[in-house]
Amino acid sequence: MRDFIFHNPTKIVFGKGKVKQIGEEIKNFGIKKVLLLYGRGSIKKNGVYDDVTNSLKENGIDWIEVSGVKPNPVLSKVHEAIAVARKENVEAILAVGGGSVIDSAKTVAAGFYYEGDIWDAFIGKYRVEKSLPIFVVLTISATGSEMNGGAVITNEKTNQKYSFWSFTSYPKVSIIDPTVQFSLPREQTVYGGVDAIVHVLEYYFDGAKGRILMDRIMESIIKTIMESVEKLIEDPKDYDARSNLAWSATLALNGLTSAGSFGGDWSSHAIEHSLSALYDIPHGAGLAIITPAWMRYVMEEDKEKFERFAKEIFKKTSAVEGIDAFKSWLKSVGAPTSLKDAGIPESDIEKITDNAAMRSPFGKLKKLYREDIKEILKLAI
Amino acid sequence: MRDFIFHNPTKIVFGKGKVKQIGEEIKNFGIKKVLLLYGRGSIKKNGVYDDVTNSLKENGIDWIEVSGVKPNPVLSKVHEAIAVARKENVEAILAVGGGSVIDSAKTVAAGFYYEGDIWDAFIGKYRVEKSLPIFVVLTISATGSEMNGGAVITNEKTNQKYSFWSFTSYPKVSIIDPTVQFSLPREQTVYGGVDAIVHVLEYYFDGAKGRILMDRIMESIIKTIMESVEKLIEDPKDYDARSNLAWSATLALNGLTSAGSFGGDWSSHAIEHSLSALYDIPHGAGLAIITPAWMRYVMEEDKEKFERFAKEIFKKTSAVEGIDAFKSWLKSVGAPTSLKDAGIPESDIEKITDNAAMRSPFGKLKKLYREDIKEILKLAI
Repeated sequence: MRDFIFHNPTKIVFGKGKVKQIGEEIKNFGIKKVLLLYGRGSIKKNGVYDDVTNSLKENGIDWIEVSGVKPNPVLSKVHEAIAVARKENVEAILAVGGGSVIDSAKTVAAGFYYEGDIWDAFIGKYRVEKSLPIFVVLTISATGSEMNGGAVITNEKTNQKYSFWSFTSYPKVSIIDPTVQFSLPREQTVYGGVDAIVHVLEYYFDGAKGRILMDRIMESIIKTIMESVEKLIEDPKDYDARSNLAWSATLALNGLTSAGSFGGDWSSHAIEHSLSALYDIPHGAGLAIITPAWMRYVMEEDKEKFERFAKEIFKKTSAVEGIDAFKSWLKSVGAPTSLKDAGIPESDIEKITDNAAMRSPFGKLKKLYREDIKEILKLAI
Repeated sequence: MRDFIFHNPTKIVFGKGKVKQIGEEIKNFGIKKVLLLYGRGSIKKNGVYDDVTNSLKENGIDWIEVSGVKPNPVLSKVHEAIAVARKENVEAILAVGGGSVIDSAKTVAAGFYYEGDIWDAFIGKYRVEKSLPIFVVLTISATGSEMNGGAVITNEKTNQKYSFWSFTSYPKVSIIDPTVQFSLPREQTVYGGVDAIVHVLEYYFDGAKGRILMDRIMESIIKTIMESVEKLIEDPKDYDARSNLAWSATLALNGLTSAGSFGGDWSSHAIEHSLSALYDIPHGAGLAIITPAWMRYVMEEDKEKFERFAKEIFKKTSAVEGIDAFKSWLKSVGAPTSLKDAGIPESDIEKITDNAAMRSPFGKLKKLYREDIKEILKLAI
C-alpha cells in the first residue's frame, strides 16, 4: 500500500429531516450572516428552501441570497456571488444544492479573499490557502463535494472546465438528508450514481497495487451504487436505497478511496470535462460515454485489475466482458454510452480532442497525449 | 439506514518511515513541550524511540517522559502521568505505542484539566469537554484508538475496566508506520487483528438494518484482516499485509463502521473487559474466547445477518456454521477460544459474572442481564 495522508475535518450530519439543523450548526461557529447560494429554484418546490431559511431565522442568522447556479456551474456566476459576498460582508457561504452549487460556494469562499480573478486558482496561478467557512445542505448525491476540498468550474469564455483543491475548502458541516432527494428526476439520480461510480473507478484503476482493503471497499461502493440506482428507478422514495446511494457517493470522493492510491487516474474526468464544457451535457452522462471507452483503451496496462473488476462486480471472467457489462448496465439505467447517444457528431471529435488536449498529457494508469484522447473519443462514437 | 453524525478530525499520516515526521506535525501546532508517554521499552529496541526523540529535537520540541504503561493500562499510571504533566506544564501529550498507551494519553490529557479523580469520567460522574492536544505514533494496530475519541482504562483497585469517550480526545495527528510493526511478536499481531475484527462485529451485529453499503464495507475489513493476519504469521515483514491490517484496524473503529448503526452492541467487549480486568489476559485473547460464545447465544435475534456473515466471510450457509468457522479460524491463528485455553477454571464463572454484571444490562442486539452473561460464559468454557 502506498503512503498517504487522510485528513477530513468535515462534519457530516446524515438523516431524515436534518435540513432543519443547519441554522444551529452555523450558529455553533458564532456566525451571524451568510451568503445563501442555490440553483434554479427546485429547493423552493421541495420545501428545502423553507426549512433552511426558517432554521436560519430561528437561530438569528441573517442571510443574503444569490441563486441561479446552473449544472456545469460557470465562472460568471461565481464572480457575481463574490461581489455580493464582499458588499454584504458575509461571514460564511451556505450552499444549498448539489455539486454545482457547492463547487461554486467553494470558489466564492476562496475568491472572497483573493484580489485577482479567482480563475487563477484553476489554472495554477494562485494556491488557495484561505476561504470563508462553507456550510452545505446537499440536495443531490453525486460529486462528493460535500466532504472534500475540490471544486470544478467552467470558464464559459474559454470553454475550460477546470478544478482546484484546497484544504480550506472542506465544508465545516454538510447536511445530507436523503429524503430531499425523493423528488429528483430519474436521470439526475442515475447521473449522480454514475458520477460517484466513476470517482471510485478513477482510484480503482490508477495502477496502485497492494491495497486489497481499498479494492474491496471500492467494490462495495460500486455494487451498492448500482443496486441503489436500480431500486430508485423503481421507487424514487426508497429511503434505504437513497441513503445507501447518498453515503456511497460521499465516501467515493472524501479521501477514503484515495488511500494507498497514486491519487487517481482522472483521465475519464479530464476528457469528460471537455464534453460538458462544449455541449453542456450532464457530467454523469458524459462520464457514461467516456469511461467505458477509456477502460477499453487502457485495459492492457493492468489486465489483472480489469479482470478483478469483471469478476467482483459482474461475475465475468475477462476484462472485456467486464467493461461490456458495465456499459450494458449504464445503458440499462438510461445513460448514454456513446457520443451519438448524446447527439454529438463524429465530426466534432477533432474539436473535443483540441479542448481536452489543452491539459494533456494526463492520466496515471496510462499517460494520455493528444492522439490517445482522440482514439478514446473514437471508441466512444 | 439510521441517522448518524460522522465527524473525525484526526489527521492520519500513513506510510514507511513516517515516524520521523512527528516533530514537524507537533511544531505545526506551535507546541514547544510535550509529555512523551510510552510502554515498557520495546520502542527502544526497534528504533522508534530514537526516531521520535530525534524528530522532537530537530523541531525544537522539549519533552518529559513517563514510561511503563502496560497492556490493560491502569489508573495509577495515569495518575502518575497527570502529576508529571502538571508539574512540567506540558502543552500536549505524545503517545508512542498501541492502544494502551494512547488510551492512557487520552486520560492524562483529560485529567490534566480536571480537579477531581479522572476516574470520574469512566463512571459517568464527569463529562470530558477539555483535553490537552494528543499526538500519536502508533506501534501496534488493534484498538483503533489512534483515530477516535475513546479510552479504556482499568481501575486496579476496584477491578473495573471501563471506558470514556470525548470529542476532545481525538488525536490531532496520528502517525501509522506499518514497518515499525515488523518486529511484533506473532501473538500481538494476532490479538490486534482479533480486536479489530470484533470492533467491526460489534457494529455488524447490532441489529441495525438497511445499511448494505456498511455491511459490505465491514465484510471487506473483516476479510482483509483475516487474510493479513494469516500472511503475517508466515512473514511478519510482509509490508502489504502489515499496511492493509493497519488501515483496516483504524477504519474498524474510526466512526466509519458506526454509520447507520445503533452505535454497536458492545456485549463481547463488556464481558471481555471483566476477563482482562480479573486475569490480565490480552484483550484480543479475551475477545477470541467471548465473541463466538456471544454469537451462539444471540444469533436467533438476527438469524438473517448471521447467515449473511456465514456466507460472505466463510462461504457457509447456516448461522451456526459461520460461527463455528470463525471459531476455527481463531484457533488456526493461535488464539484461545475457551476459558480453559486461557487457564481460567470453570469455577470462576460466578466471579466473572459478578464483575461483568456490575454494568449490566448491556447489549443492543439482545439486552443481557446477569443470567445471560453467565450463560455466555458457560458457552465459553
